[in-house]
Amino acid sequence: MIDFQKSGGLVPAIAQDADTGEVLMLAWMNAEAFEETVRTNRAVYFSRSRNRLWRKGEESGHVQEVISIAIDCDADTVLLKVKQIGGAACHEGYKSCFFRELSGSELRVVGDRVFDPKAVYKK
Amino acid sequence: MIDFQKSGGLVPAIAQDADTGEVLMLAWMNAEAFEETVRTNRAVYFSRSRNRLWRKGEESGHVQEVISIAIDCDADTVLLKVKQIGGAACHEGYKSCFFRELSGSELRVVGDRVFDPKAVYKK
Repeated sequence: MIDFQKSGGLVPAIAQDADTGEVLMLAWMNAEAFEETVRTNRAVYFSRSRNRLWRKGEESGHVQEVISIAIDCDADTVLLKVKQIGGAACHEGYKSCFFRELSGSELRVVGDRVFDPKAVYKK
Repeated sequence: MIDFQKSGGLVPAIAQDADTGEVLMLAWMNAEAFEETVRTNRAVYFSRSRNRLWRKGEESGHVQEVISIAIDCDADTVLLKVKQIGGAACHEGYKSCFFRELSGSELRVVGDRVFDPKAVYKK
């Protein structure tokens, strides 16, 4: 169903707010992450930095309930429509990881912070 | 501004319809593609299969006018909000490349075809 081999085992997965259409984040999936996502209806990614499955929300509690799963024409990208529990997908506390926009040659913060990362991730 | 080295020179770039929020496609950018996109306000990608810059619409005329450019928290993914000229981003003639959704264990076509690829790509 998905061509995991083309990109060396990982494909990009986009998470989009099912209600508003806002793009929340992009992460990566291997076959195991994709299968678990389909089976459990919760977004599971593969963390490249930790080199293991990443059940989104496993630490923060901010899981993503999967409403629908689409696949692109080349079968090498996944699009999840999700309900983001906790209201924020980004580990920096913003609703969307794409909270900065290019304005001229500068990056400008356009997103609102939903939570304080220090309070959520007790590190 | 963007970490092109982390992924070996290419980062994923999501194109989203600026009006409807529909995710149209995911492609890849190298530094040159990103710079040309910023400079020209037209989406320019890097085609992995053709191994060269891909000015979206160069063959079909279906260019993407860039309305805004966002960058994610890790600075390794680009999100373009675009106006899709011609009404379809997908080379198969659908508005979005994500025209198939998982339904049980089957893929179901949920998008509408906007054009006939054979008429647009004279191959």
